[in-house]
Amino acid sequence: MTLTLAGIAQLVGGELLSGDPQRSVAGVAGLEDARPEHLSFFGNARYRAQLDATQAGAVLVAKDGPVTHARAAVIRVAQPHLAFAHVARAFHRPPNVRPGIAPQAVVDETAQVDPSAQLGPFVWVGPRAKVGARVVLHPGVTLGADAQIGDDSVLHPNVTVYERCIVGRRCVLHAGAVVGADGFGFAFDPQAVEHVKIPQVGIARLEDDVELGANSCVDRATTGETVVGRGAKIDNLVQVGHNSVVGPLSILCAQVGLAGSTTLEPGVMLGGQAGISGHLTIGARTKVAAQSGVISDVAANTEVLGTPALRKSEQWRIVAAQRHLPKLLSEVRALQKRLSELEGKAKP
Amino acid sequence: MTLTLAGIAQLVGGELLSGDPQRSVAGVAGLEDARPEHLSFFGNARYRAQLDATQAGAVLVAKDGPVTHARAAVIRVAQPHLAFAHVARAFHRPPNVRPGIAPQAVVDETAQVDPSAQLGPFVWVGPRAKVGARVVLHPGVTLGADAQIGDDSVLHPNVTVYERCIVGRRCVLHAGAVVGADGFGFAFDPQAVEHVKIPQVGIARLEDDVELGANSCVDRATTGETVVGRGAKIDNLVQVGHNSVVGPLSILCAQVGLAGSTTLEPGVMLGGQAGISGHLTIGARTKVAAQSGVISDVAANTEVLGTPALRKSEQWRIVAAQRHLPKLLSEVRALQKRLSELEGKAKP
Amino acid sequence: MTLTLAGIAQLVGGELLSGDPQRSVAGVAGLEDARPEHLSFFGNARYRAQLDATQAGAVLVAKDGPVTHARAAVIRVAQPHLAFAHVARAFHRPPNVRPGIAPQAVVDETAQVDPSAQLGPFVWVGPRAKVGARVVLHPGVTLGADAQIGDDSVLHPNVTVYERCIVGRRCVLHAGAVVGADGFGFAFDPQAVEHVKIPQVGIARLEDDVELGANSCVDRATTGETVVGRGAKIDNLVQVGHNSVVGPLSILCAQVGLAGSTTLEPGVMLGGQAGISGHLTIGARTKVAAQSGVISDVAANTEVLGTPALRKSEQWRIVAAQRHLPKLLSEVRALQKRLSELEGKAKP
Repeated sequence: MTLTLAGIAQLVGGELLSGDPQRSVAGVAGLEDARPEHLSFFGNARYRAQLDATQAGAVLVAKDGPVTHARAAVIRVAQPHLAFAHVARAFHRPPNVRPGIAPQAVVDETAQVDPSAQLGPFVWVGPRAKVGARVVLHPGVTLGADAQIGDDSVLHPNVTVYERCIVGRRCVLHAGAVVGADGFGFAFDPQAVEHVKIPQVGIARLEDDVELGANSCVDRATTGETVVGRGAKIDNLVQVGHNSVVGPLSILCAQVGLAGSTTLEPGVMLGGQAGISGHLTIGARTKVAAQSGVISDVAANTEVLGTPALRKSEQWRIVAAQRHLPKLLSEVRALQKRLSELEGKAKP
Repeated sequence: MTLTLAGIAQLVGGELLSGDPQRSVAGVAGLEDARPEHLSFFGNARYRAQLDATQAGAVLVAKDGPVTHARAAVIRVAQPHLAFAHVARAFHRPPNVRPGIAPQAVVDETAQVDPSAQLGPFVWVGPRAKVGARVVLHPGVTLGADAQIGDDSVLHPNVTVYERCIVGRRCVLHAGAVVGADGFGFAFDPQAVEHVKIPQVGIARLEDDVELGANSCVDRATTGETVVGRGAKIDNLVQVGHNSVVGPLSILCAQVGLAGSTTLEPGVMLGGQAGISGHLTIGARTKVAAQSGVISDVAANTEVLGTPALRKSEQWRIVAAQRHLPKLLSEVRALQKRLSELEGKAKP
Repeated sequence: MTLTLAGIAQLVGGELLSGDPQRSVAGVAGLEDARPEHLSFFGNARYRAQLDATQAGAVLVAKDGPVTHARAAVIRVAQPHLAFAHVARAFHRPPNVRPGIAPQAVVDETAQVDPSAQLGPFVWVGPRAKVGARVVLHPGVTLGADAQIGDDSVLHPNVTVYERCIVGRRCVLHAGAVVGADGFGFAFDPQAVEHVKIPQVGIARLEDDVELGANSCVDRATTGETVVGRGAKIDNLVQVGHNSVVGPLSILCAQVGLAGSTTLEPGVMLGGQAGISGHLTIGARTKVAAQSGVISDVAANTEVLGTPALRKSEQWRIVAAQRHLPKLLSEVRALQKRLSELEGKAKP
């Protein structure tokens, strides 16, 4: 498959600034990997040197990008990264779903599997579970009793969806992801000297267009629901605790942890390894930097950093000041000494 | 199933302060989720507003709680959270074990599986492994050679127990948990220029009543045992390194990491994402706050916080002081200037 | 199986300082676990008390170690830990590969499986995938279309290798590890109000002699390759983001996270829970301490610590100084007061 530069410009609503409109490209690649048959993109001034050196046959640039390039045709677009995504999707359509149930899958007789769904070997579908149209269940996927998977979702190998949990439409769950394991709830019994398990009888529910990374976990609620909202994207090895709510369009990078009963409003972004304590609310579109630890509510449209998390600007000032701290200690010692001497002289 | 308020009061050793003893409830729920047919609980003054607003038909409260409520019957108990756990368990008993081995399971002919155990499809039980009474092995569980699973334990989908490792009685292992993968041990060979793997020939052993979260890992020992003690509860995505000992009744929140050969004495609590270096001892009942990094032994009955971890009270004073640090720098600069001026004047 | 002390001394190029050369040992163990039939090692002066108390029948020591021991024969070697590794490997050879494909495995007819390979039950091998000589695929392993596994590699239960990804020779992948899940790449479309997924069409490639821990994840590249270099060792629950390069012989401890497009040069060591931001280069043989957060390039042969990571010596000075910070605040207040008084007196 190839696309002409004219076709690409039309696809992304861009303008071909230089290069032959009938030239064709055969795929996409990053600036450093690209060869003459590839289209690439320049979205961040930081990569100017890579743009200059690229072997790509064409590049998508923004308004402030160059109008010509030594080797590459140049297409101007409003948002190069987004345009690149659209071109990449035109080149790389997901493989066709091959309807049918592998003979080595086990589907309970009371389950409802849409005839257009594809179930691989070693898939187990429990009683009364529902599998929607064009769903792909890769080998080793397990759906508990009464679980539901919405149309066009893809569950990669060894994903587990526990009983009664719900996955929306067009979701992607990567290998080893777990939806609906028990929330972590115990009450200590001092007489029996044991932690008494509180039954976790709620569910976990993923709305439409959610992506859940490899080996990530969304726990079921104690009662009620743990929810991952529409279009939220979650990377690998993330923990979403019981009764949490991940707002629509939120982004959770790898190894993030949400304790229980925490609410992320829409569009929150959590950097890798960040952690959020329980029973908090993080306001809409707020960004939490990687490795931060949030222990109190955060307002909307804020950027926070550090543990405990503070506004980014304040935290950076503290971080910068800390480097002066060892010297500051000795300076204060010197001041004390000088001041004592002065005070001695000042005595009558 | 329903329970009367009188029956609940009797079950939890509580006193019905207000409400009709014959009124029945049909389940449990948190204060915010509860409807009139539910019992809830009020265990923390922080949630007073939710108590006032709850639609629950009955609430469990402690001595310092209210004696009446606009809508809910009130039952006084010593520990509302614990009482709630017991009532929840009365309502939500685990499903009955259905004895038998699915035709799609593979059990080595030398393995010993109790006839009361339930083995789902795609379960593999290796040579000489032992599976106790009423054990449930969900689809995709793998037990290596000579592994042992104690009576009444439940292993959720795709759990792996490596060869010779031991799981006690009444344990719950959530989906994707791994018991007995190799400890991380290598010795660098400068001549061959390679890391030489040290065979990990010990085992991992979970005592009775342990819960292990989804995708958590307990590594086998280099030699000897890695142990998780009786009644310890471990959340999702936790790493327990080789030759570590997790004391009985310890609580490890999600994404905690224990390096090798570290000992947690009984009842230690580790907050989410906390990390403990190797070859340390954390004293009994000590609490390590979330995201803390512990790099030296900690005494019993202590609370520590931060990286490197300090006593909580000291660390909070430092954290509070840090916010003044940028201003402090300029104040010291001002002091230096003022002092120099004074010194100039003081010169004869 | 037993080995004589003379045989062990020869195996490791060591010198038997005390003890009967014909005495035999039956295995290896750590100083604390060892019994009289065991060989142990003393590699770190910190464990002197354990050496003195050990019940081991023989110990490996370095030049600066003791020449005799109350109970143990003493063998002097250049590197006790490395010598211990070699002796342990002599005692504990991996089990023989049992060639053959379990009847419960599903191998695509276009896949190429070497006849010497061992495929357990519930293994799925996709179209055109290649499985090398003496490879062991434990139960539940899934190999996507066109995946390749090099000779002598072992994939433990429920490992997933996505389509087209490559695992080298003599690799060990522990249970639940995931190679080649999608990189985390989206472009926000403000008009459609959604995150548009960027197809991840590159691959993940593990070179020879790599070990990948339980439930660890190496994402596939957006375009091109994510690479784990020869002989690198990765512990459990580690995240290697798309387009990252892990240099040969690097060591990544548990729960480490590498964001996208980050390069580790050869021999880098990352402590547990450390995180590295995207698009960085960490120089050869650099050590990053546990829980550190690296947000800028680091030169070769450096040791860094903290978040944001600084040179270890500088960071330790800051950490030490922080403990004085609360007191420093009050000292500066006192200085200000004393100075004001002096200034008052100095006024004419």
